[in-house]
Amino acid sequence: MGTLVLLRHGESEWNAKNLFTGWVDVDLTAKGEAEARRGGELLREHGLLPDVVHTSVMRRAIRTAELSLHTADRHWIPVRRHWRLNERHYGALQGKDKKQTLEQYGEEQFMLWRRSYDTPPPPIADDDEYSQFGDARYAALPPELKPRTECLKDVVHRMLPYWYDAVVPDLLTGRTVLVAAHGNSLRALVKHLDGISDEAIAKLNIPTGIPLRYDLGADLRPTVAGGAYLDPEAAKDAAAAVANQGR
Amino acid sequence: MGTLVLLRHGESEWNAKNLFTGWVDVDLTAKGEAEARRGGELLREHGLLPDVVHTSVMRRAIRTAELSLHTADRHWIPVRRHWRLNERHYGALQGKDKKQTLEQYGEEQFMLWRRSYDTPPPPIADDDEYSQFGDARYAALPPELKPRTECLKDVVHRMLPYWYDAVVPDLLTGRTVLVAAHGNSLRALVKHLDGISDEAIAKLNIPTGIPLRYDLGADLRPTVAGGAYLDPEAAKDAAAAVANQGR
Repeated sequence: MGTLVLLRHGESEWNAKNLFTGWVDVDLTAKGEAEARRGGELLREHGLLPDVVHTSVMRRAIRTAELSLHTADRHWIPVRRHWRLNERHYGALQGKDKKQTLEQYGEEQFMLWRRSYDTPPPPIADDDEYSQFGDARYAALPPELKPRTECLKDVVHRMLPYWYDAVVPDLLTGRTVLVAAHGNSLRALVKHLDGISDEAIAKLNIPTGIPLRYDLGADLRPTVAGGAYLDPEAAKDAAAAVANQGR
Repeated sequence: MGTLVLLRHGESEWNAKNLFTGWVDVDLTAKGEAEARRGGELLREHGLLPDVVHTSVMRRAIRTAELSLHTADRHWIPVRRHWRLNERHYGALQGKDKKQTLEQYGEEQFMLWRRSYDTPPPPIADDDEYSQFGDARYAALPPELKPRTECLKDVVHRMLPYWYDAVVPDLLTGRTVLVAAHGNSLRALVKHLDGISDEAIAKLNIPTGIPLRYDLGADLRPTVAGGAYLDPEAAKDAAAAVANQGR
């Protein structure tokens, strides 16, 4: 059985501005680029060398994969990308300031949208400037598959087919598989792998730029619950920082 | 029928140092990065937007593809890589200074190695510091496929199976296909496409960083011989500069 390595992209331009991003295709900041390179250094230092990488179709995850793999000298491995690994679509909140949204709607509604399992934000209008409705990369998707908003439950449902159809076959052939993706598509995957309840997943935050290693059994479940971060101390600090976003 | 776009990587660290590179996996210089981004701007300006990209397994071609596609906002397209698109293996000359080699062996021998169709440089030793014999990316290749030196004829022979098996199917489905590769793997492809003779190919130089567009007929041959550079003036100047390398 292969080894699974999850890597959340580093700081993006809209992370830095404290805006809800979702499917808006913003770039990494210089800090985010440094985080991605540090992720690659950790892979190299631990001799955890990916044989194949899966990314979303979003720039911040793609560049995180590129920068970390160039740093780890594994830039030449096969690449696969899929929208099913995309960040959660944040609906009408895309482009909105997190702090302003918190003040406008109050703590309870804000946390429901951010962390509840099954409450999506209001849907985005097709003509919203932050809609991806006309985006060429989604041109082959039938309308009913193009999200206008998503809760984490929606992400689990659209992510799992890619896990089963594309990632699992790579693991079954004994490969070390890197999945470079987003806070919520990775939370969706971790929820599935570790069998985390709909309630408990609200409290799970995945830090940016720190590879998370999962060794899997024949049942494709972790041999150690929660996996292992390659830099556990930094992961603890970073997860706390994510939990405080918008404050 | 789809559209083929060829892109030769920009200046590498060893181009800048005037060393024979071959399969040594050096990075782009800052100038090479700028050339790649300019290539992406040209793609965008001409509305020539790749649907899929094929690269070698070498860093300078991979980064050229990444930088140009990020610039053209096509970073999200499918990627395929293969060693059959690699630069020509330069044998025992890898790591050697071009000017020194010219002085040491004389004009005739130097030009035979650089530009003759079927005279490879002396083979590299497996324990040469610039051999790729132990490189993980070639671990799955049987020994007889790992080159120790190559002439352009050898490159044509090992490149063509990839053209037929991987690039042509993408073209047949109507896609715009970007091939980001190297001076000699692209010369090999252009020789095949345009039916250039073993003698005439010696004089053909492909400039770096300027996309070369080929529209193909049903016979998968160019409708216009030689294709069209997206910046013809710059291409003319750059090709002349390549021809003078080592002087």
